[in-house]
Amino acid sequence: MADLQATLDSIYSDILPRIGEGKVADYIPELAKVDPRQFGMAIVTVDGQVHRVGDADIAFSIQSISKVFMLTLALGKVGEGLWKRVGREPSGSAFNSIVQLEHESGIPRNPFINAGAIAVTDVVMAGHAPREAIGELLRFVRYLADDEAITIDDKVARSETQTGYRNVALANFMRAYRNLDHPVEHVLGVYFHQCALSMSCEQLARAGLFLAARGSNPMTGHSVVSPKRARRINALMLTCGHYDGSGDFAYHVGLPGKSGVGGGIFAVAPGIASIAVWSPGLNKVGNSQLGAVALEMLAARTGWSVFGD
Amino acid sequence: MADLQATLDSIYSDILPRIGEGKVADYIPELAKVDPRQFGMAIVTVDGQVHRVGDADIAFSIQSISKVFMLTLALGKVGEGLWKRVGREPSGSAFNSIVQLEHESGIPRNPFINAGAIAVTDVVMAGHAPREAIGELLRFVRYLADDEAITIDDKVARSETQTGYRNVALANFMRAYRNLDHPVEHVLGVYFHQCALSMSCEQLARAGLFLAARGSNPMTGHSVVSPKRARRINALMLTCGHYDGSGDFAYHVGLPGKSGVGGGIFAVAPGIASIAVWSPGLNKVGNSQLGAVALEMLAARTGWSVFGD
Amino acid sequence: MADLQATLDSIYSDILPRIGEGKVADYIPELAKVDPRQFGMAIVTVDGQVHRVGDADIAFSIQSISKVFMLTLALGKVGEGLWKRVGREPSGSAFNSIVQLEHESGIPRNPFINAGAIAVTDVVMAGHAPREAIGELLRFVRYLADDEAITIDDKVARSETQTGYRNVALANFMRAYRNLDHPVEHVLGVYFHQCALSMSCEQLARAGLFLAARGSNPMTGHSVVSPKRARRINALMLTCGHYDGSGDFAYHVGLPGKSGVGGGIFAVAPGIASIAVWSPGLNKVGNSQLGAVALEMLAARTGWSVFGD
Amino acid sequence: MADLQATLDSIYSDILPRIGEGKVADYIPELAKVDPRQFGMAIVTVDGQVHRVGDADIAFSIQSISKVFMLTLALGKVGEGLWKRVGREPSGSAFNSIVQLEHESGIPRNPFINAGAIAVTDVVMAGHAPREAIGELLRFVRYLADDEAITIDDKVARSETQTGYRNVALANFMRAYRNLDHPVEHVLGVYFHQCALSMSCEQLARAGLFLAARGSNPMTGHSVVSPKRARRINALMLTCGHYDGSGDFAYHVGLPGKSGVGGGIFAVAPGIASIAVWSPGLNKVGNSQLGAVALEMLAARTGWSVFGD
Repeated sequence: MADLQATLDSIYSDILPRIGEGKVADYIPELAKVDPRQFGMAIVTVDGQVHRVGDADIAFSIQSISKVFMLTLALGKVGEGLWKRVGREPSGSAFNSIVQLEHESGIPRNPFINAGAIAVTDVVMAGHAPREAIGELLRFVRYLADDEAITIDDKVARSETQTGYRNVALANFMRAYRNLDHPVEHVLGVYFHQCALSMSCEQLARAGLFLAARGSNPMTGHSVVSPKRARRINALMLTCGHYDGSGDFAYHVGLPGKSGVGGGIFAVAPGIASIAVWSPGLNKVGNSQLGAVALEMLAARTGWSVFGD
Repeated sequence: MADLQATLDSIYSDILPRIGEGKVADYIPELAKVDPRQFGMAIVTVDGQVHRVGDADIAFSIQSISKVFMLTLALGKVGEGLWKRVGREPSGSAFNSIVQLEHESGIPRNPFINAGAIAVTDVVMAGHAPREAIGELLRFVRYLADDEAITIDDKVARSETQTGYRNVALANFMRAYRNLDHPVEHVLGVYFHQCALSMSCEQLARAGLFLAARGSNPMTGHSVVSPKRARRINALMLTCGHYDGSGDFAYHVGLPGKSGVGGGIFAVAPGIASIAVWSPGLNKVGNSQLGAVALEMLAARTGWSVFGD
Repeated sequence: MADLQATLDSIYSDILPRIGEGKVADYIPELAKVDPRQFGMAIVTVDGQVHRVGDADIAFSIQSISKVFMLTLALGKVGEGLWKRVGREPSGSAFNSIVQLEHESGIPRNPFINAGAIAVTDVVMAGHAPREAIGELLRFVRYLADDEAITIDDKVARSETQTGYRNVALANFMRAYRNLDHPVEHVLGVYFHQCALSMSCEQLARAGLFLAARGSNPMTGHSVVSPKRARRINALMLTCGHYDGSGDFAYHVGLPGKSGVGGGIFAVAPGIASIAVWSPGLNKVGNSQLGAVALEMLAARTGWSVFGD
Repeated sequence: MADLQATLDSIYSDILPRIGEGKVADYIPELAKVDPRQFGMAIVTVDGQVHRVGDADIAFSIQSISKVFMLTLALGKVGEGLWKRVGREPSGSAFNSIVQLEHESGIPRNPFINAGAIAVTDVVMAGHAPREAIGELLRFVRYLADDEAITIDDKVARSETQTGYRNVALANFMRAYRNLDHPVEHVLGVYFHQCALSMSCEQLARAGLFLAARGSNPMTGHSVVSPKRARRINALMLTCGHYDGSGDFAYHVGLPGKSGVGGGIFAVAPGIASIAVWSPGLNKVGNSQLGAVALEMLAARTGWSVFGD
């Protein structure tokens, strides 16, 4: 795929005039400080090519994209038993809605809405102190990306801790339904740190490559999950990965993906490549405005949509 | 793919001992009479092979699968303007829920829940008397399948008309929000007839082949929709095709698909084949119990999942 | 109570400068034609005095106030068995909400929201053709008011029939849950006619006097219901009589009452008097703007609030 | 009213054979220890008579009844401005529902559901440390009842603090909507202590007498609120005082009242008397089973219903 870099470059030059579009997330004070005029994209193919444009090397707060890695860890620990604690259906509601949680007695709809991710974090914590669980995740992500330089941004974690009332509400609500084993502060402590993982597009694309490559990272040779589990995580990303904009993302882009309010989107072209894009300005449903546009361009120009070329 | 027939045969022999599982839909009296001990499956590949097992030639009531054909017609008439009338997000609710409709002021969440399909039917009817709209759909499906023998089962249509109070409620509700242009009885008249389309697995797989083949039917040479539209219809089936079981179907099967309460499921392996399976017994979320099992087997044994092999 | 007329006069002169406030209901075309610059009020005391101001003799469409009379008829027919068909709790939702109905499987929350009133109408119809049920209600109201001149406005009934999609939705929804015994069109035929009852303030105050006087009309000597039932109907009016503005009405006025979108409000001062007020302009929650103000003045100036003087 | 004691005695002897009915609240461990075989009732008339039966002198946890006193304090501090922070409509949902809170952006429906009471507590705390606010409430209730012996049960307060996840969720949820000025732990600290107020039926009836007597306590001569405010608090109790059983209580008893999960019910016969009843066993909607029965008997035998005699 000699022309993949050319495709990436063409996307970049189409995006450049629009840089700054969208609105930086402001509900986490630390994120609100980020300069919106940034855009980066990285693609790692299953045969080991790496392509980059723009700010692909600048680390950003991956926020909800971390839910993919925590889900992978949790499935590794308890397997399909995880689905007693969280569902697998799209929510049809905003990402932090508490309504569905009440209607369904404390079982969140899927692992990618906040409540579900908090339940997943609780599962990962079994037998660990909070600090250990955070350490385990960090080691896991570094192992996936084969990059020891990946860190957690403590300032962002602290910023969320101070303003995350809604997540505190969700966690206590689940605890009231006995769907949380650990103390709320411990679970949220881990949760806010996982969201504060700081990674560049390239690091992210490398870390998620196993999902494009039948569960193993062809660049490191590490086997992470079975091919079946890789498919299933991809399925969850496609149906639930963008909150109440999941249908729209599938319609326009056609790739399994997961977005974060830091402006990152991670996507998978099964059997072909993993992709990470970042631009801090968000659209109305809370996904990176230019990130989504760039992925739609990529899918259109490569024919990588899982729904046909 | 010489061994595709062998794969199909192996699925059939694995399914046979379980025949009769599930519960036949009883809310439409005419459907309740169907013998549950039936199973058929047909696959038509994009290169023109046809494979069959079991009762693949017996016509059954395709019910909600008809929504895929009506959606195709509606997009042909009004293009992307359709999305002013209906959304593209999974509903997170049961197929005939009226709650979401109220919260969102009469705009149904997607074209595959009943309310959304009724809105789509209203769009298709523009400029037509009900009888003409039914005729148009029938001609369209016969054209897609290249089979003039396809009919509508009037008894089933009448049976639904007499018991479809909930659909009458949905339609009047949308009319109250001015999201229905034609008289409720006319729209529902067409809607109940489209649901009563009677097709065999083979007819269904042939009719839907264009969705696996970039929008054109390679067996007839007919161009139906653009490649882009075919992808988009597939995306909608994957995220919304099975009501509140869509996430689960994507997780286990990994193919765009649409189910009907008559026990049929239509699925697409983009670039490879279209598939139809039928067995009248339904599971708890209202999809064919054995049909879903057979498709999961097929995806596992062929590696056709869109989420990786 | 020699000064009751003086009190009424003082209210009238305070209201006059504000005449025309509020917005006439426009969702029923026939009601939209009513001149908003009208105001009338009538009080009938349990000891037989009648006081009037303004347009107290002009007949208007009583709309939902008719629900009080139908409830009285239904309780007469099936007694406390009625509560299997409809609840007794405030709805916490708008008057025509269908959401609660789904959550509670077709049992409306109370007899004064539209769905509940439709169920009550269905109960009253038992053993009657629609025309007979309408006749029975008309005879009943004439008997209560001791006035054979009361009529039903067919134009209004027809106007509602043509635009009442939401009520058609509610009725079909209940029918789907088997909480309607008669055909939807029959029940709604009666329902729309009962809403089209045309009465003046004085007729209305006379007709409802039994609720202020332990179940009997002291002016005619007719015994209508037991004292206990009169209390209970009053209790229902206080908690549920003004849709989602019931709490507010109790807070400001402190009398059991029932409003209608025609601009009428009927209220009861138990043991003292029955009151009817009419002014077509509605406030934001759909009750007569000046009618509510006048009743608040009346309660404040007479000390009639049931919550203390 | 020489025979009021006789009426009370007759109620007591009718209740005695049923003692132990209902189920003691078990979600607060400390309350679960209470012996269910207790029943007490006290009536204080506006002309200064005090009547008692059974365990009328045993202190119990008044729980949500405290919301009436806190509401009175809050109205005293900010007047009608309170209604920017909390609504005045019945909720149509269970007492601790979080759903409505989301639909209405953090403004609870009324001051008697938990969320609303927490908002009221936040208002009362303005300018106070938590300990001071608790002290202020205790002084206020002692002043109302003219009884310095009233205390707060610290064990109960601690028990709630350890298990009140749902209230923590509600408070954080409101904080997320900026409808809470103080730190969540502070507000809930006060809230759990107010719920742990320990009072006997007689103390409670005395403390609430001002609501029956135009805002002043005739036994102490203390003026607490204006007559108008007394009426309004009574109106709120009638429409919202028993969570989703308010309509039912109005229907059967016909008096403004407020229940608590400790098994107490406080009620007001405006212009006549204040009443407190206590029996720990709860009915299905969370109100004292025998307490509600006793109040229905009292209203029926005295003709005190506000809806007519």
